[in-house]
This record gives sequence, structure tokens and C-alpha cells, in this order.
Amino acid sequence: MAFEHRDEHIDDGMLLLQANIDDMNPEYCSYVSDLLFAEGANDVYWVPIIMKKGRPGVMLNVLVDEAASGRMEDIIFRETTTLGLRYLRASVHRLGREFYEVETAWGTIHVKAGFHQGKLVQFAPEFKECEQAAKTHGVPLKQVYDEVRRKFLEERVNEG
Amino acid sequence: MAFEHRDEHIDDGMLLLQANIDDMNPEYCSYVSDLLFAEGANDVYWVPIIMKKGRPGVMLNVLVDEAASGRMEDIIFRETTTLGLRYLRASVHRLGREFYEVETAWGTIHVKAGFHQGKLVQFAPEFKECEQAAKTHGVPLKQVYDEVRRKFLEERVNEG
Amino acid sequence: MAFEHRDEHIDDGMLLLQANIDDMNPEYCSYVSDLLFAEGANDVYWVPIIMKKGRPGVMLNVLVDEAASGRMEDIIFRETTTLGLRYLRASVHRLGREFYEVETAWGTIHVKAGFHQGKLVQFAPEFKECEQAAKTHGVPLKQVYDEVRRKFLEERVNEG
Amino acid sequence: MAFEHRDEHIDDGMLLLQANIDDMNPEYCSYVSDLLFAEGANDVYWVPIIMKKGRPGVMLNVLVDEAASGRMEDIIFRETTTLGLRYLRASVHRLGREFYEVETAWGTIHVKAGFHQGKLVQFAPEFKECEQAAKTHGVPLKQVYDEVRRKFLEERVNEG
Amino acid sequence: MAFEHRDEHIDDGMLLLQANIDDMNPEYCSYVSDLLFAEGANDVYWVPIIMKKGRPGVMLNVLVDEAASGRMEDIIFRETTTLGLRYLRASVHRLGREFYEVETAWGTIHVKAGFHQGKLVQFAPEFKECEQAAKTHGVPLKQVYDEVRRKFLEERVNEG
Amino acid sequence: MAFEHRDEHIDDGMLLLQANIDDMNPEYCSYVSDLLFAEGANDVYWVPIIMKKGRPGVMLNVLVDEAASGRMEDIIFRETTTLGLRYLRASVHRLGREFYEVETAWGTIHVKAGFHQGKLVQFAPEFKECEQAAKTHGVPLKQVYDEVRRKFLEERVNEG
Repeated sequence: MAFEHRDEHIDDGMLLLQANIDDMNPEYCSYVSDLLFAEGANDVYWVPIIMKKGRPGVMLNVLVDEAASGRMEDIIFRETTTLGLRYLRASVHRLGREFYEVETAWGTIHVKAGFHQGKLVQFAPEFKECEQAAKTHGVPLKQVYDEVRRKFLEERVNEG
Repeated sequence: MAFEHRDEHIDDGMLLLQANIDDMNPEYCSYVSDLLFAEGANDVYWVPIIMKKGRPGVMLNVLVDEAASGRMEDIIFRETTTLGLRYLRASVHRLGREFYEVETAWGTIHVKAGFHQGKLVQFAPEFKECEQAAKTHGVPLKQVYDEVRRKFLEERVNEG
Repeated sequence: MAFEHRDEHIDDGMLLLQANIDDMNPEYCSYVSDLLFAEGANDVYWVPIIMKKGRPGVMLNVLVDEAASGRMEDIIFRETTTLGLRYLRASVHRLGREFYEVETAWGTIHVKAGFHQGKLVQFAPEFKECEQAAKTHGVPLKQVYDEVRRKFLEERVNEG
Repeated sequence: MAFEHRDEHIDDGMLLLQANIDDMNPEYCSYVSDLLFAEGANDVYWVPIIMKKGRPGVMLNVLVDEAASGRMEDIIFRETTTLGLRYLRASVHRLGREFYEVETAWGTIHVKAGFHQGKLVQFAPEFKECEQAAKTHGVPLKQVYDEVRRKFLEERVNEG
Repeated sequence: MAFEHRDEHIDDGMLLLQANIDDMNPEYCSYVSDLLFAEGANDVYWVPIIMKKGRPGVMLNVLVDEAASGRMEDIIFRETTTLGLRYLRASVHRLGREFYEVETAWGTIHVKAGFHQGKLVQFAPEFKECEQAAKTHGVPLKQVYDEVRRKFLEERVNEG
Repeated sequence: MAFEHRDEHIDDGMLLLQANIDDMNPEYCSYVSDLLFAEGANDVYWVPIIMKKGRPGVMLNVLVDEAASGRMEDIIFRETTTLGLRYLRASVHRLGREFYEVETAWGTIHVKAGFHQGKLVQFAPEFKECEQAAKTHGVPLKQVYDEVRRKFLEERVNEG
């Protein structure tokens, strides 16, 4: 049974914010990521880079809707050590998305499925739910993950 | 003797497709690259990145003519686990290009030369041919490579 | 005021366990790290590497006392996809350690100090406490961190 | 049905050879890896590192039985640009290993399984066979891979 | 006392030049960076990437004003081995900037401060001056750096 | 003409010191490397790693003779932020080494050659001299480098 449907679409008007940082305590990184996600970032990731004088730095990347970029910039300037940031215009193509429920010996786990031109091309068990089931039931995480995938596929095979 | 000439030029209307992937078996990467190159990608490369919750992910990058981007997206959605991808507009400046033949003790090897504003700025032995010569004749690859470069330079010195 | 004293010392009999992984969903990494730390690992870290056929893999590293290495191996085999692991013998030189308390406008924060041959060479505010203070009081994390360092240094200057 | 059995065991007397390289054409890397594997390396991998003057170099790593290390050194000195290499002693813990056959709509695919203390902890479809099936039958590689895993698990569930 | 004031502003019309390089001696990298900075690059950095056939390459990135991009391209084509480069349009948001002087036991050190919407959000001791002071006076670099930060903060606390 | 001869040999009794650092300003890295080299390190390099909570850290590596390791540890503890370090025993195999002189249009440049079992396997122009020649004469660095290699090879071909 699928629910939480979203159509495949393209978001124009996205920005990719980037800041190269070579003088910040790397302990701050996850804290900064969490704040950016909480304020509406679509994605946050860090790229190891080599900067001026061969310094091992990191490049912060934030993908965000143009309308929310001001909030992102405030966080980046307040919480990192950068003196500037750049932004590149981007468009994002998002697959259609539906959620399914799969019953397992360790409870119900959701599966997120992705559709391209009406055809299912992706399916992924919800990681947090698998993690929780693994902890609660003392089974390997990969066993939970594999079992959810197996049952999801089995149901689709049976449905024909 | 040069052949296969191509003029220096700029391609506007290129796209850089990017997909951040943190839930895919990395074994798939070279297979995906090969498919993308086969379908017309100008370049494909992977960047190690750090994603949500500190996961070591990879960012797939595909540089492609806008006209071919649909085919690339189909492959990316079908063969990787991503639920979306972004694209950035790019222009590509390509050097003028000519191919030369160099005679060596291990056979003829081609050299690809690059021209900027009419001046030779790059030359590179064709890697596959050097590799093949090294295997066939049981000599170190770097010796083949160095010899091709030496003879190419020698001919140019002699030509004045 | 210092407490929780530990002398500088060298631990021989440590092992560095390493497993190269190129076929695992990277989502599992933080879960695996947490389990290993919980079972007694001294350190856990991941190194981006390039494996067979140019695959972007990760190398899991676990630093652990030889006595606890069996528990680590059980977790690695149960929770990752590796078919083997290697171990290297290592000695670990640990600084003398003391904890101090620093009073700030946002509450008491601990500072961990490191001593080499009786001399203070390191001091670091407890990250989790700074993070908590930043969240609770709505101030930038780096401001909390800097202020704790400033006050720690100031007290030492005043003590002469 | 399982075959090609190998018991779980520990190989002492392994060496990890390492060479830091900052002046070599990176095109050579895969060629060097292939030669080392062909001559008996147990594993070969490359680590991106930052060397003297901030140069982006690579560290070549070769895991090999001590008896074969001379052959590896010959290849490394002949085919790379390094002026030296170091070796660290290592022990390798290898899981018990068995191969299974799984029937799919695209033919028989082998699965390599790993056993720790007699218990199955790993199973992985043979990558090359999945790749070949995907190419031959024009299906996504991940679909082949997933189906092999599903059927392997299904058989084990049914066997109870 | 602050001087060398610059207002916060956004530079549109910047370009990010990128060239993927897998056949160049990495020794050249710092030389190339220095030339690019000397000719007006706003930033130069290198990203470790995985290219065709799994080769460990580097991506050169140069952030530059569009007006100066021709000079950058000349250097890149003349000094690296690339046969092409791409450029992406970017805007750069630069903080307001002021320089302060801090007196220490090892002489005067400047601090660069960054302002976002009129509010001080960054301050960083001038690295070269700290480095010089550390060398001249035989003190740890981090001690110089920390002391400059401490005194800068202390003055601001006292100023209220 | 060769001079500064050194025989091929193996140094046992080397140590590889390693410190994982996730709370240090990366600006310090090159300063720390320089100090370690100045005090006798055989090699110093940094590896980008992913640490606790997914922080992008760096692993400092110092290869050093056991007799000099105390001096290295003093520098590491004094100049970085680490609270400990580990060391692994290593042996280093160093090629025989000789220096040659090559005459070019830009002056004499030295070439360092490496010998394995009496056979020349490596040769590399002295980087600093090439760099200086390139700057002084306004020619591309790669042209100087290539020309030195070409002339070195030419002389060897002529010598038979």
C-alpha cells in the first residue's frame, strides 16, 4: 500500500552555496549541518579539498531553494569561520515518490520508492526505522535492511 | 605528421549533472561510468564527500551536452540509487587538437596534442597504445611513455 | 581546579584493525562506529580509498586493546560486508590528562587538558557541553567555544 | 548447494607495503594495480594523501604474503616513480568461504558467502556475473544484484 | 583600532573554472596555484576525484572575476596538462572586513574581522604574522594564535 | 656524470607515528610538516579521514628513525592539538641513489636516479631547480621538466 505521493518534477531556482574553510575546528561540522537542515536546506555535504599552501580544508555545500538562501547564509556566517561564500544556480530533478509499508518479524518498516516517468526505479528501506529495529531486537542492521528489501521485492513479484 | 584536426572552441550549453549517493554499493560505480561514457557523456567523475550523519558518500558528476542530458538522467536513475539529481549550466573551452605518430622500438604510438591560440601547449601519448606496447614487449609502461615523449620532443627540436 | 587525573603513559599491546569495504551501503558506517565505540574501541575512523577496478571504497580502522579485539571482530563481521580484516600491532602514547571547570555566562563548561612531561600542552573545551550551551542559550557554538578557551587562558595568566 | 569451501583462518606473516607517490602520472595506477594482482597481491588500494608542500599525492598499498613481497617490490620499483617503500607486518583474519548457485531469469549467478565461527555472516553475488547478465539481458545491474540477493535469502528462509 | 575597511557586498559576474587532471605530475600543483593567485585568482583549490578507469585525479578550481578569466585560462593551459576546462557562473557574497591590531608579548599581530549586516561574526589572527612570531620567539604557533584571539576577545569584552 | 652515491638498503627500526586530529585549525598543517622535516622526519603526510560523529579530520603520519621519534613526539604534542599518538614499526627499503647533471638552455639541472639491484629504475629532475629555472626564464615549468627528462634519456641512449 502506497501513500504520501509526490509527483516527479523539476525545481528551478535552487542555489548551491559553497564555502571553502581552512581555519575552522572540524568538530563544528555536524553541528552546522544539523542547523542548516533544520532551517530548510535540501542537502548539506562537505568535500575534502586542498587549499592555499597545501592546507587540508573542507568545502561546505548547501543546496537550497533561492527563497531560503538568506537563512542559510546567516547560519554559515554565524557558525563557521568563513569570510565569504559563493552561490551557483542549479535545477533539481526529483523523482516521483511513494512510501510503502513492509511487515517484518521486527515490526513494520517503511520503504521509500522513486518513480521516473511512471516506472519504479528506486526503493530504499527507511534507514532510521531499520536502525531502531536492529537495536531493539539485537539483530544485525544489514539483516533487517536485506529482509525489508527482500519482502518488498517479493510482494512486487507476487503482484506481477 | 598531424591528422584528425579540431579547432579550439567553446561549447556553451553544457550541463554538469550531479547526484550525491550514500546508499549504493560502490561496486556499481565503474559500470555506471562506462554506460554514461557509452551514451555520450563528455566526462564522468566521482568525488568522495561527507553526507548527512557523517556518512562517507560519493558525488557522481556527469558533464554533457544539454541535448544528451535526458539519456544521462535515464541511466543515472535506472542504475544508481539516487532519488534526484541537480544540474548546473557550464561552458567548456576545448583546445585545438591534433594527433601525431611517433615511431618507437615497440611500434607506432599516437600523440594527442593540444593547441591554445595556435600554439602547442599539450602533448600526451595515447595511454591505451602505450599500455598495449608495454604488455606486448614486456617493458615498463613508464619507459614506453617516456620514450614516446622524448621522440616527440626530439622531432620538434629538429624541425626547429 | 583540576580533577580526574590520569598519568602520561604508553600502551603497548594495541591493535589497529583494518577492513577495506567496497560493497557496503555507506549508510551503515555511523551505526557501525557507534557499536564499536560502545564495545570498547579506543578509536574508530574511516579512510576514503580507491579499490580494485577504481571503485571508491572506505577503509574501516579500529584502534583497540588486544584483549578486546575479538569483540571488535565480531561486530565488524556481523555488521559490515567484509570477508576479512587485517591487524597491525601498535603502541599508543597518551598524554597525562586533567579536567578543569570554567565558569561562563552560559554555565560551567569542562576543559580537558593534556600534559607532556609534566607541562600543559593541550586544552580543549568539552564539545558536547559547548554544543548544549549554544543550543540552550541561542548563541553561536564558536562563541561559546572561544569564550571557554579565553577564560581558561585568562585564569592561567592570572595564576602566573 | 555450496562448493569451493575454505575454512576460516588467520594468516600471520603478511606484509603491508606502502609507497607515497607525488610525481607520477595517475594514469598508471590501474595498470600497476592489475600487475600486482596478477603477481599474487592479496589486495591493492590507493589512498589520496597530502604530501610535502601540500601536494596531492597517492599512497599505494599492497597487502601480500611475505614470501611474495620481493615480486611486489620489483613491480613497484619498475612501474611507479617511487624511490623507496616501507613495509608493516600484518596478520589477516579471513572468514570461512563457500560459493552457492542461484538461478535467476538471467541465468545462474554465484554467491560468495562468508562464515564466522560457523555462522553465515556475509553473502555477495559475484559482481562480474551480475554485470555480464545485466549487459546481456539489458536490465539494470542493481535489479540483477537485488534479485540474486532476494533468491538467496528466500532459499535460506525456506530451508529454515 | 580598525582600519582597511571594506563593506559587505556581493560580486556577481564571477566564474568558477574547473579542470579535471589525471595525467599530470602532482608536484606541479603548488606552483600552478601560486601563479594563479599572483595573476588575480580570488581562490584556488584542488579536489581529489576518481576519474575514467578509476584513476585518482585532481580537479583544479579557480574562482575569478570574469574579466580576469582569460589570464587564468592561459596559465592553466600553459602550466597544466589539461586539454580543456569548463566554467560555471557564480556570485560571491563577501563579508564586510576590518583589520585590528593586537599587542602581544611577541609583538603586534593583526586580526582580520568579518561583519555580516553590521555585526562582527568572524575574527582571525593573520596567519603569517603568527607563524613569524612563533619562529622568532620559539613558542608554539598555537600558543601565539590562542593568545591573539584571547586578547582580541578581552578587549571587546572590556569595551562592552 | 654521477655523484653523491648511496647504496640500495633496508632500514629496519623505523617508526610510523600517527595522530588523528579533528579539532585543529588546518592552517597549522604546513607549519607542523616543516618543523617535523627540519627535525629529521623521513616523511610527513596527511590523510583526510572521517572521525567520530562523521567529522572530517586529518591523520598526521610521520615516518622516522626510532632514535629520532622522541623529538617528533615533542613537536606533535607541542604544535598540534592531539592528546595521544600511536606508532607502528616499519622497515624502509630505499633504492640506490645517484645524482646526475643535465645541461639545458636554462642552466644545469640535477637529476636524481634510483637503482634497484644495480639497474636504473627511476630518474627525476630536481623539482626546485626546475621551478627556479621556469621562473627565471619565463618558460612553463612542464617544458623545463620535460626537457631535462628528454636530455637525460638522450644521453643514456647515446651511451648505449
